[in-house]
Order: sequence, then C-alpha cells, then structure tokens
Amino acid sequence: MSDLSQVKALVFDVFGTVVDWRTSLIADFTKWGKMRGINADWTALVDGWREVYAASMDEVRKHPERGYVILDTLHRQSLEKLVEQLGISALDDADLHYLTMGWHRLHPWPDSVSGLTRLKTKYIIGTLSNGNVALLTEMAKFAKLPWDVILSAELFEHYKPDAETYLGAARLLCLNPAQVMMVAAHNHDLKAAQKLGLKTAFVARPTEYGPLQKYDFEAKSDWDVVAKDFGELATRMGC
Amino acid sequence: MSDLSQVKALVFDVFGTVVDWRTSLIADFTKWGKMRGINADWTALVDGWREVYAASMDEVRKHPERGYVILDTLHRQSLEKLVEQLGISALDDADLHYLTMGWHRLHPWPDSVSGLTRLKTKYIIGTLSNGNVALLTEMAKFAKLPWDVILSAELFEHYKPDAETYLGAARLLCLNPAQVMMVAAHNHDLKAAQKLGLKTAFVARPTEYGPLQKYDFEAKSDWDVVAKDFGELATRMGC
Repeated sequence: MSDLSQVKALVFDVFGTVVDWRTSLIADFTKWGKMRGINADWTALVDGWREVYAASMDEVRKHPERGYVILDTLHRQSLEKLVEQLGISALDDADLHYLTMGWHRLHPWPDSVSGLTRLKTKYIIGTLSNGNVALLTEMAKFAKLPWDVILSAELFEHYKPDAETYLGAARLLCLNPAQVMMVAAHNHDLKAAQKLGLKTAFVARPTEYGPLQKYDFEAKSDWDVVAKDFGELATRMGC
Repeated sequence: MSDLSQVKALVFDVFGTVVDWRTSLIADFTKWGKMRGINADWTALVDGWREVYAASMDEVRKHPERGYVILDTLHRQSLEKLVEQLGISALDDADLHYLTMGWHRLHPWPDSVSGLTRLKTKYIIGTLSNGNVALLTEMAKFAKLPWDVILSAELFEHYKPDAETYLGAARLLCLNPAQVMMVAAHNHDLKAAQKLGLKTAFVARPTEYGPLQKYDFEAKSDWDVVAKDFGELATRMGC
C-alpha cells in the first residue's frame, strides 16, 4: 500500500477524465447545426478531430523553433482541414470559431463536480491539461468545476507527457513531486507522471471514445489509487 | 464615461486590495508569539517587512542573470535580515518558515468575498499579483476567495509593474488588453495597466498601512471605475 499521507495537491487530466468531450461536442454541434441549417455528420467530425489531436501536439514538439502553439489554435487548424475532408461547406469564420470554442463548453461526468468538491476540502485541486489557460478557465465556469488553480501545458510551453508539465506543476505549487497526485483516465499520462515521482490515481472512463474506445478500460499498472469514479477517489483520499 | 462593455475579465492586485495583510499578520504573529513564548514587536516586524518589499523585487529586476526569484523566497530572505536587525532571537528554521508562510494566511477585507462572488457570475475573475502561485492558491483556500484563475508575476518571471505581467495576463486569457480590467488599491499599479491598454478600477483601502499610510487614499487619475469597495465595483460592472 502506497503512502499517500504526503499528498497535498491533486492535479487532473481534463479531457476524458473530468469532462465527457465526445458526448458534449456531438450534442452541441448537432443542436447548433439544426439551428444554422447545416447538415453534417457531427459525430465523424468530433471523432476525426480527436484522432488528429496527438499528431497536432507532436508537430509542436518537433518544431520548437516555431514557438509554442496553444491548443485552441491547434484545434482551429485541424478543424479547417477536417471540414474540407468531410465536405462540410458553407462554414464562415464565425462558424469555425463557434465550433473551436466547443472545447470550452464541455460537460463533466456525473461524478466529477461532487467528487472534486469533496477533494477540495482537504487538498489543493487543479487542472494539469493540454488545454490552454483560457480554455480551462472558461470550461470551469461552464461546467462549474471548483478548481483551486488552473495549471496548463501552456504555462510550461510543453505538452503532456513531456516532463516539463508534471515537474512544472509541482514547482508552481512549491511541492515535491511525491506531494502531488496526478489523476487521469489514461494509463500513458500516469506512466509519465509516476516516472517523475508523482503519485498516481486512475479513474476509468470506458465510454470516453464511445464505440471507438480501444484502450484505458482499466488500470494497466500499479497506480497508487484505482477508483471507479471521483466519489470513490475522494473516499480513498480520506475526504 | 468609459466603454466597459468589452470587459470579459477582472484581474486583481491582492496584497492590500483584496486582503488586509497588515492586520492579519500582526494578529497571527502576536497570537503565535504568545504560544511560542517569544516576545517581540510584531508590528515593527510586519511594517519593516513590507517596507523592503519593493526593494527586494527591484533586486530581481536588476539581476536577470540570477534568474527569477519567487516572492516566498524574497520574503524569507528579508525576514532573516529583519529579525536580526530587530533583535528577535531564538527563531529556528521552522519558526522562520511559519512567519514566511504568514503571507499565505491573510484575511480578506469585509467586502472582498461577497463582491468577488457577484463579479464571478458575469466575468472571469483572477489574481494578478506579485505573490507566487502557491502563495495565492493557499491564500485563496484560507480566505475563501472564489478565483476562476490564479495569475501571478511568477508565470511571467517579471514583477509588477513590468509590462510583461499585464500583457501576459491578457495573453493567457486570450483577450485584448481592453477586455481586461485591472483592479487595485494602488494608483501606480493602475497607471502601468492603463498605459498598456487595460481598463482600470480603483478601490481605496485607506487603512492598508495603518498609521503609516502615506498615499493611495484616493484615485489620482481618471480610472475607468472608482468604487468605495468591491460591492460598489460589482454594481458598477452590472452584477
């Protein structure tokens, strides 16, 4: 049994772990498309958009000379290619902006807000997401996520799973890595955090990718905590 | 009358504007000193500590080759000199740490939390303080300050009133400077923000420095809003 008594802060992956991006975006765009009179396969758009997510961050990683590019901008660039590929025409700049900002309007999983609210009574709770600061801040207001602090890849100009993000979070909180617990629904995120000395908690979100989910149905390593939802995580952390 | 309809976010100076550092620290240290059996002029310590605040940040500004130094560290360095000067002896490392962390345990002015809570319904509200991220995050939990986002000089590795702080805040929020309002009880802070295109709000805190207060009793320029407290500020901002 891992000693978790030193933990002072929990930092959370957000997309998929705290919010259900896929269901949220498909519902948002379907409703908006009807109002705008645009008929399109929004599910294909959303799935295709997320599919190029990792590659878009890899481009930033491979080209440091171009400078850091925030996720809102990567989302917009990917979207412009995708709508062309999917033959969704007649979208103007305001439409593309509306869709891109969809990532700021994501709904939490049913247990997220109540679990975070319990954890906040005993720990510092923060984001540690590849979303940029404005995205995470607006999402928190939209979804009523009670963060104490917004930590983002943008602050470190490195995307997860680069070490700079996990170590940067600990540094900004003036904590040792072992005093910080990374919470994620993704084994690879926790693997990177654990290697750097952070504590780890896995919460499975088996419907994150809908019928396309291929992995992360369960914990694949000896994470410090494995919980079925944020309520169980709060209980395990003594809240 | 200035057009404030564009404003999306309010960022706040914290020490003196949101929290009453002087009264809080004197009360905290007096109580602690009694328990620890240490007799000292805590008022002199607190006033002396704040007196060297600006100079300690100037040292960081003058020596970029030394790298950025967070406020917790500057506070500790100043404290070590001060206790010697004031002849407060017998303080061990844990004592010095306790006193330094006093800046994380500051109480809000009576109108701060209710005013911020109203403003939060319509705007993004954040800190924009020379305090480091950990300091501001812990203070928010202690004082129940309902920030949406913690913005700190530390994120920009520049202390206010350097331009990097105000412009950095707007950049992280993905807003133009005119969409951000700086709120402070200090005319010089607002002057720097206004010059860079931010909107400005002045709230006088005439007892901040106790009997030592020499300026900032009133607005010294045409700030966009001048309010007697955060409640009036919220009303003026349509909340």
